[in-house]
Amino acid sequence: MRNDLKVAVAQMEVLPGQPTQNAANMCRLIDQARLQNAQIIVFPEMAIPGYLIGDWWEQPAFLRACEQAGETIREHTQNICAVFGNVAIDWNRRNEDGRPRKYNALFIAENGSLRPPEKSPLPFVIKSLMPNYRQFDDSRHFYDLRKMAAEADAPISDFYQPVKTRHATLGCILCEDAWCQDYTHSPLRELARHPEIQLFINASASPFTINKNHKRNRVFSSHAQQLKRPMVYVNHTGVQNNGKTIYTFDGASCLYDAEGGRIDIAKPFAENLHIQDIPLEPASSFAPKHPLREDSHLNIANAILYGLQKMTATTGIRKVVVGASGGIDSSVVAALFSLVLSPQNVLLANMPSRYNSNTTKNIARTLSHNLGTPCVTVPIEDSVALTSAQIDGLQPNIGSIEAPLALSDFMLENVQARDRSSRILAALASAWQGAFTCNANKTEMTVGYTTLYGDLGGWIAPIADLWKGEVYELARTLNQHFFPRPVLPEELFTLKPSAELSAHQDVDQGLGDPIHYPYHDRLFASWVEWWNRTTPEEILMWYENGELETRLQVPCTISSIFPTTAAFIEDLEYWWKLYQGIGVAKRIQAPPVLAVTRRAFGFDHREAQMPPFFSPEYLARKNKLLKQISSATQS
Amino acid sequence: MRNDLKVAVAQMEVLPGQPTQNAANMCRLIDQARLQNAQIIVFPEMAIPGYLIGDWWEQPAFLRACEQAGETIREHTQNICAVFGNVAIDWNRRNEDGRPRKYNALFIAENGSLRPPEKSPLPFVIKSLMPNYRQFDDSRHFYDLRKMAAEADAPISDFYQPVKTRHATLGCILCEDAWCQDYTHSPLRELARHPEIQLFINASASPFTINKNHKRNRVFSSHAQQLKRPMVYVNHTGVQNNGKTIYTFDGASCLYDAEGGRIDIAKPFAENLHIQDIPLEPASSFAPKHPLREDSHLNIANAILYGLQKMTATTGIRKVVVGASGGIDSSVVAALFSLVLSPQNVLLANMPSRYNSNTTKNIARTLSHNLGTPCVTVPIEDSVALTSAQIDGLQPNIGSIEAPLALSDFMLENVQARDRSSRILAALASAWQGAFTCNANKTEMTVGYTTLYGDLGGWIAPIADLWKGEVYELARTLNQHFFPRPVLPEELFTLKPSAELSAHQDVDQGLGDPIHYPYHDRLFASWVEWWNRTTPEEILMWYENGELETRLQVPCTISSIFPTTAAFIEDLEYWWKLYQGIGVAKRIQAPPVLAVTRRAFGFDHREAQMPPFFSPEYLARKNKLLKQISSATQS
Repeated sequence: MRNDLKVAVAQMEVLPGQPTQNAANMCRLIDQARLQNAQIIVFPEMAIPGYLIGDWWEQPAFLRACEQAGETIREHTQNICAVFGNVAIDWNRRNEDGRPRKYNALFIAENGSLRPPEKSPLPFVIKSLMPNYRQFDDSRHFYDLRKMAAEADAPISDFYQPVKTRHATLGCILCEDAWCQDYTHSPLRELARHPEIQLFINASASPFTINKNHKRNRVFSSHAQQLKRPMVYVNHTGVQNNGKTIYTFDGASCLYDAEGGRIDIAKPFAENLHIQDIPLEPASSFAPKHPLREDSHLNIANAILYGLQKMTATTGIRKVVVGASGGIDSSVVAALFSLVLSPQNVLLANMPSRYNSNTTKNIARTLSHNLGTPCVTVPIEDSVALTSAQIDGLQPNIGSIEAPLALSDFMLENVQARDRSSRILAALASAWQGAFTCNANKTEMTVGYTTLYGDLGGWIAPIADLWKGEVYELARTLNQHFFPRPVLPEELFTLKPSAELSAHQDVDQGLGDPIHYPYHDRLFASWVEWWNRTTPEEILMWYENGELETRLQVPCTISSIFPTTAAFIEDLEYWWKLYQGIGVAKRIQAPPVLAVTRRAFGFDHREAQMPPFFSPEYLARKNKLLKQISSATQS
Repeated sequence: MRNDLKVAVAQMEVLPGQPTQNAANMCRLIDQARLQNAQIIVFPEMAIPGYLIGDWWEQPAFLRACEQAGETIREHTQNICAVFGNVAIDWNRRNEDGRPRKYNALFIAENGSLRPPEKSPLPFVIKSLMPNYRQFDDSRHFYDLRKMAAEADAPISDFYQPVKTRHATLGCILCEDAWCQDYTHSPLRELARHPEIQLFINASASPFTINKNHKRNRVFSSHAQQLKRPMVYVNHTGVQNNGKTIYTFDGASCLYDAEGGRIDIAKPFAENLHIQDIPLEPASSFAPKHPLREDSHLNIANAILYGLQKMTATTGIRKVVVGASGGIDSSVVAALFSLVLSPQNVLLANMPSRYNSNTTKNIARTLSHNLGTPCVTVPIEDSVALTSAQIDGLQPNIGSIEAPLALSDFMLENVQARDRSSRILAALASAWQGAFTCNANKTEMTVGYTTLYGDLGGWIAPIADLWKGEVYELARTLNQHFFPRPVLPEELFTLKPSAELSAHQDVDQGLGDPIHYPYHDRLFASWVEWWNRTTPEEILMWYENGELETRLQVPCTISSIFPTTAAFIEDLEYWWKLYQGIGVAKRIQAPPVLAVTRRAFGFDHREAQMPPFFSPEYLARKNKLLKQISSATQS
């Protein structure tokens, strides 16, 4: 008979900031696992407190509640071993901020007792590598193993120890500990000094990010093969946020064997308690092999739908009002919410002015019909006229020579946008006892091509982490996979994108947004999403070298958009200034963004209001280029 | 003759994200110092790049510009030694996030060459202790000395070395390095192993926070006395922000001697190049002694005025529109901006509805007269009526049994608030080519007693880090110290605070806000500002023990506000739910807050949208208390 360990992997939903409920859920899962004769049950990182909970870590009462919930789990481990993430507090020592010391910890409890790592000064495992990039703030709150080793003036290897339980000897780490390629040491390599370890466990709290799972499968599978031991990866589901940015957690928990095999224990975003017999002989194989693959728009659609479902539940929002302009963005948002809340709880509001075409008004009507949502039409003409009448011609400095106030056409564009959101949608939403949505996409958000208190208002921005081109892809995906027949009308895919706020944006004349999406989407992505971000300096250099299309993967030639270098530079600087200038001011007051990429606006993409920066190198290159052109023209 | 060192301390304004301009300014200061025969000039931490610049650290082009600016300084050091903060980049190594390795560094250059610390692997000094609390994110971007020591597997003491320059041997540290009480080692104590060090330098980038300077004087003066060496503390002026929160830097640079003396080298918030002869004999005294004192409302007023002055300059805003309700908050904001931009550039807009009293309308008029600002009256009645006409009675689900939409009185309160800000103030501001202000205070911000896209709108929130009681103090200070005669009318100080959005808030009948400011200001401060934050658990315990007034320093008895325990608990839970519930949602979309306390909303006070949490301990205590009362009533 093989020496198998019966492991229960608990892909549970973690409710952030609700230790008592999470512990109750965990006790229920422990009971289930015990009934199925599991010898060990493995829960995710921070399963009790949640992970992204802002600064609640600074409330001693919250910490005590987490400790108490952890005790409940410990007491609940008769005849089973539970491995679970929780905050651990050393009330007698200080964090570097002077507050009680906290660890991002993994507890191992069996038969009512904690099983500490061998020779450990602490009765639990603590996280060693602290992510401080993207939305992660681990060093803000938690004392790590490296600091502990330095404090004890002992070699760090002393602190990596196996955990002996009745049925197996474990090597336990937390999340980032396995992503060690840019750190000076590897927790797994340290643990590998102990050949008695039979099973490795990585407990994580890792949000969905496009293609992250595939990278993890590559990295973790390779760890398991090198360690010649099986590895359990357990991650939770649910939604957590840090105010400005909302993260979905897809779970995607799995088991890696020592031969490159993998068992996915659940569908993404689905709770599951998976029981698996794992052979403890080194280098055994028990799982099938999978080809590597990339995420599709279906994964993105699922993440967004899951995020919206959980956020509506968390905030108690049961009805939403969508300002339906007849454009692609609002249509996609309406379709998403009709899936999440059911059509009768999604109210489409079309708010026409003289500039709205019959084309888009008809699309909005067709959309409402296709989705089966209610729809109202609330025109804004009277209110815009009233605002004009009240503001135009006002003379603030009586007796001064200053001209009276005048609302230009451009100012009236913003008046229209604010009227729609802050006057109509907000009132509609409160009267209907719901909330209204922000339909902005990432392209608009980048350069602030949106009106504050206007179309940038709303309780959530579901598609603000998708470039315009990706919104179209999402629309296709929704039509193909989520509805019995296409709900987003075909005209949406051919219509020129337009704000329809002035006669210069008449879609029926083929007019619209000043953004060349196929190029600007890629350009802005290089500013925002690339790990080492580009600036006009790199862009201009690549332009000069004729390699911009390749570098940015633009599906058209740059010269087809910009006939001259001067035009190219003017465009580049125009958008760069908006991205770093007014775009920042607008994002500060933007709604929470539902994140899907590895760089979402808000808490991930941190920024300051500063004058836009052009490097000396950029300015020199630009001057040289323009001079060459001007002398070429003269000669 | 004494062995004196002529030191120039450069309290310069640092422009965040503008390395080229900062370097040019520093070259000018070096020239000035050289003319005055200074042997060494000392600049602040991150003098070249700025400190709070969001994630611009991830742009290689920006980093190269900072390196280049640093080279400019190095080359500019003929016959002088310059000590300056800059980012240092090791392009061949990685930070833990995989990006090029960056250090928060201090460069010492003399006669065109860098002077590295003795036996150092790096040609500059790097920061050791990384603040990761409040708004600080050092570990997100910079590799610290402790990690470097661990990487080299060498004792950390090896890395603390003196820097030999022609005229003196220096012990150099950066900011947090001197605030080591909660860290496991002390950079100053490490440097003190080198008795040849003659002068210690702490280069900082430290924002103004109420009473911080006095604490620093206590701590740093004690360092200098223990080290028996003089210490230069250099900090910059200017304003930096991280989007949601704006920080003023007051400089407050000074020299500490070894005997407890101190020389303040400039007024707060003023640039200065101070030249000082410092005796290099150990334990010498050259500076006068000062009594310890606390910041007054005058310091706060100065910080806010400086912040507004710099932020208007940075953003190019030359005119502001203030919605002037005739209440204390908007009046204070109007007075502040009249000082910053001059009265003719501040437009007061009174926007009455049927609920606004003549009392407050008159105050607004008097205020405009006293300040000498223009003033317009733009009523909102017609627009509110239009909104009612358009929304009231709408039937979204045609043919359904659902009742038609109806705007309740409460909903109409929010309609009024949004109409004022998003319709009128925004249009007025754009037509006047200015911006409008957010007049919210910290008490309102805490519990979201404010309307999103309404009075919570605006480009900046100047008094949102002051509790209501402090707004009154600031008003008194402005009247007494900043104007030839009081400008804020005396009625403002006696009037009951009121939003005047319904008949239930009639100030002439003594009605108004549901907040008991003297108590709730202190209660909310304990939730928001205390280092270890209170929650209902502690509050209820202190209430039960009769110590709540003392703990919170409430200037009245709790029983005078709440006749019964049930009423006390109801109030406590009501506000706690708002603080952790809708208050969070509103703050996510709130304008940038000008920080003065050690816990300002935004990037300092990080938070998530989650259901409010009541600890099991709180719930048990509450149930016990209410049961006691109910059985006492029954018996």
